[in-house]
Amino acid sequence: MSDRSRKGPLDTSGIDRIIGYRLRRAQAYVFQEFKTHFDPLGLTPADYSTLVLIGDNPGRRPSELAEALGIQRANFVPLVAGLEAREWLERRKSTSDGRSFSLHLTELGQQVRQRADQVQARFEQKCIAELGGEVGRDELLNLLGRFRG
Amino acid sequence: MSDRSRKGPLDTSGIDRIIGYRLRRAQAYVFQEFKTHFDPLGLTPADYSTLVLIGDNPGRRPSELAEALGIQRANFVPLVAGLEAREWLERRKSTSDGRSFSLHLTELGQQVRQRADQVQARFEQKCIAELGGEVGRDELLNLLGRFRG
Repeated sequence: MSDRSRKGPLDTSGIDRIIGYRLRRAQAYVFQEFKTHFDPLGLTPADYSTLVLIGDNPGRRPSELAEALGIQRANFVPLVAGLEAREWLERRKSTSDGRSFSLHLTELGQQVRQRADQVQARFEQKCIAELGGEVGRDELLNLLGRFRG
Repeated sequence: MSDRSRKGPLDTSGIDRIIGYRLRRAQAYVFQEFKTHFDPLGLTPADYSTLVLIGDNPGRRPSELAEALGIQRANFVPLVAGLEAREWLERRKSTSDGRSFSLHLTELGQQVRQRADQVQARFEQKCIAELGGEVGRDELLNLLGRFRG
């Protein structure tokens, strides 16, 4: 066996120390798992977080919502359009400024959000189990929160 | 102020409980910071992790490397081509199988990797400071590692 490409497992100690790399791998893994849970509802991760944010904050402008979600405006416009097309969202004209509008969940959107919250609760239990319990989850969210100070 | 779109900060407590969302935000933040450190070297996060992995594992096949990095083969091909075009990587024919080849850093590639490791060390210090010290970093990497079991 002179071929070094058959020498067993790779040494990943170098890449495994790179914080950004490790975050990307974990995020990709969790998004993939999310997909298996949410595909029956037809929801992407971005769809779900948008529904939750608008449900919790009815009547806000798209620009405020996009900023809170950390999504570029150019990416938020098609995301909102997709949710509107499914009649989960509706836009209403601002009472104070006829040019601007605010976003609301429709009744159907509220029902979808409730079902999605139930799926999320099950998915979260799976993540919590992988993280070794709620203490692990809380610690992870605490550490991740330190990045946005 | 009857316009609800002007009611101050949004309630983000719902989205802030979503583990995948929090991972995505942290990953996007760290990648953005990475970019400010690595742009002078012309390295993306994927370029850097690929250089590190190949530097630590000379003579491996692209398929092994892509799998270890969690990158789809279709995305790894142009990534490798970009590093080859800059003469940081070279491919060598397998001694045992003329159809396959293995990847190595060139001398120039090794120099770039060394410089990038120095930039990474500084960037890591910044991340460690944000995470509240090395204990925070170690705990974060430990928790992230639980997802890939």
